[in-house]
Amino acid sequence: MIELADVLDARDRVAETARHTPLEYSHTFSEMTGADVHLKLETFQRTGSFKIRGATNRIATLTPAEQEAGVVTASAGNHAQGVALAATRMGVDSTVVMPETAPVSKVQATRNYGAEVVLHGDDYSEAADHAHELEREGGRTYVHAFDDPAVMAGQGTLGLEIYEDLPEVETVVCAIGGGGIVSGVATALKGKRDDIRVVGVQAEGAASAAESLAKGEIVEREGVNTIADGIATRRVGDRPFEVIEKRVDEVVTVSDSEIAVAVTKLLERSKTLVEGAGAVPLAAILESKFDYANDEVIVPGLCGGNIDLNVLTTVIMRGLVETGRYLRVRTVLTDRPGALEELTNILSRHQANIYAIRHDRTSRDVAMNDAEVELDLETRGHDHVAALLDALEDHGYETEVLV
Amino acid sequence: MIELADVLDARDRVAETARHTPLEYSHTFSEMTGADVHLKLETFQRTGSFKIRGATNRIATLTPAEQEAGVVTASAGNHAQGVALAATRMGVDSTVVMPETAPVSKVQATRNYGAEVVLHGDDYSEAADHAHELEREGGRTYVHAFDDPAVMAGQGTLGLEIYEDLPEVETVVCAIGGGGIVSGVATALKGKRDDIRVVGVQAEGAASAAESLAKGEIVEREGVNTIADGIATRRVGDRPFEVIEKRVDEVVTVSDSEIAVAVTKLLERSKTLVEGAGAVPLAAILESKFDYANDEVIVPGLCGGNIDLNVLTTVIMRGLVETGRYLRVRTVLTDRPGALEELTNILSRHQANIYAIRHDRTSRDVAMNDAEVELDLETRGHDHVAALLDALEDHGYETEVLV
Repeated sequence: MIELADVLDARDRVAETARHTPLEYSHTFSEMTGADVHLKLETFQRTGSFKIRGATNRIATLTPAEQEAGVVTASAGNHAQGVALAATRMGVDSTVVMPETAPVSKVQATRNYGAEVVLHGDDYSEAADHAHELEREGGRTYVHAFDDPAVMAGQGTLGLEIYEDLPEVETVVCAIGGGGIVSGVATALKGKRDDIRVVGVQAEGAASAAESLAKGEIVEREGVNTIADGIATRRVGDRPFEVIEKRVDEVVTVSDSEIAVAVTKLLERSKTLVEGAGAVPLAAILESKFDYANDEVIVPGLCGGNIDLNVLTTVIMRGLVETGRYLRVRTVLTDRPGALEELTNILSRHQANIYAIRHDRTSRDVAMNDAEVELDLETRGHDHVAALLDALEDHGYETEVLV
Repeated sequence: MIELADVLDARDRVAETARHTPLEYSHTFSEMTGADVHLKLETFQRTGSFKIRGATNRIATLTPAEQEAGVVTASAGNHAQGVALAATRMGVDSTVVMPETAPVSKVQATRNYGAEVVLHGDDYSEAADHAHELEREGGRTYVHAFDDPAVMAGQGTLGLEIYEDLPEVETVVCAIGGGGIVSGVATALKGKRDDIRVVGVQAEGAASAAESLAKGEIVEREGVNTIADGIATRRVGDRPFEVIEKRVDEVVTVSDSEIAVAVTKLLERSKTLVEGAGAVPLAAILESKFDYANDEVIVPGLCGGNIDLNVLTTVIMRGLVETGRYLRVRTVLTDRPGALEELTNILSRHQANIYAIRHDRTSRDVAMNDAEVELDLETRGHDHVAALLDALEDHGYETEVLV
């Protein structure tokens, strides 16, 4: 099992390439929760996520001969970019196998960081199989994304930074996918002061670690389903799990809706872009998934910000819907002049701004002379939505809430 | 004219309420430009913009009797929130007049910071007239958003922070709307070291300061037109203009497209949300609107992040289009089975991902048997867009690029 000394050793190697990222007090989230919330802005890390830390430590500890032979890995996301940049900075040749379905932006970023990218297979596991072939054929070292002591120790440097910047920290909250970062961070923090609490957070649709802890042995899920693609792993790693059992105080889960709300709030209130996996620690705090005291000093690790901008717009929409700030509703109008005006009058009296109206007379679901209308509205919260729907029904409109 | 001493005096008053915001080195933008770019992350300021600095200094310098009588202002945006929070923190009563069209989110935020919000008038100038009525009737002090020495000196504290964190700074780039922040910052920096260059940046559609400098007297524009609503002022302030003439080295302008690209790049690469006005300094750097040397130490002030999330999605779209990453194109299909498949085959061979397809047989612009098709595509840059359009035309499709 890795120990504090491994993380301390990693620090000097990692400092060459990865940044000491800022820790910022958040008035907004402190006020919302009553705790004393400081955000670990790993979003400012090079490559946009913490993965560069572990990859750098792994590659730096290879023998000269291994470095000469190069490295290989498989990833559709942050680990790809971390390995690519870490290898390039150390003059090591890298090959990254990405599934053919990987987002264009991530493929380009990985190439820009200097890796040779091979597109292969329909999903991560086909890409990983091919990467292992390249490992065997080319004599390259495979850099695992999490189930590797040097990788875990490298990720742990994030924990050292938190402790250094805020020695009075009481609780650190970390996402868990494969378990690389939480195991490194827990090792660093417990090594420094064993009363620092470490809470792990998983997406409900990929909660292998939570299920494994409950069962006392590693559970591999048949599939994963979450918007937090950075932690969408079917199985927690063996080595990380050993550390989690021993050093992580609690593991909780959050839903996709809770994640979307946290992404939206971070953007709106802290002006910080996180990917789904980067938002899960804050989601767990906001939803009180674990107990904390008033004024407790809590640090959620915002571990990555690599979210495709198109995905982001979908997540924002979901976040606005979940907080009652966006309403899409369908109703039926008698198709005669003035009918739409009557409807928009009600909306305007209730101060709901209209983003879009779709008006369709050809829908099969309505009578020949009627028209189906879909409204996208800006609303002010759940109470406002409820009042608006009541008003529409009072005026004889049937309504169906669509999102 | 304000002097360094005024800014130094402001610092202690402002420190009570406003934060010393982080300054972060940017690998990405340094690599893109060859300069040594550090981002002043005023997006982390309380209320999400620098306006809290000037408002705090203004209210703190009122007499006890004036504080007792309360303050009033008009604003549709950041200044409203700055005055509200500054007043509340000092126990001063505040009234903020906002136009009836102000975004719901900004009205709510201003109320949450403790101001009484009065919705009045269709635009800023009607709101301002009403605020001046309240000033006369209620004996309140009107807090101007920029044309006030105490406000300007307060905004200047941002310049002191840059100098303190990065004494080797060579050039600081600031947005100009009314001129409050640039005049304060220029006064602070030139007072500290007069070879620090200060560059002001305006939106093309609201370039009163640039036009005024060219003419040698203040030019009031008939109207303004820019996505950067935080600097959409028709006229630079008298007092700020005096300082700009003397202490700002250069004033340049950027277009809305350039602003949208900068917003998108900050989000994608630095994981930082800025509003349009917050992006103009970086836009000017990226577009080389002024000369700078290799390795020159440049700080763009990212002065605010209060952008409505719905506006944001529009700006992102514009940024993606401008960088060739999003293409909306219309073409015509013979309306028979398989026609759409032929088209999507071409797209897939050219690796353009499809976001959305709208297929319409009822369009008046096409023959009875044809169908109009609108495609939303993810593309990889301008070269990819050009190659794709060529391929479609080679296969006999007429194309019309829509955005």
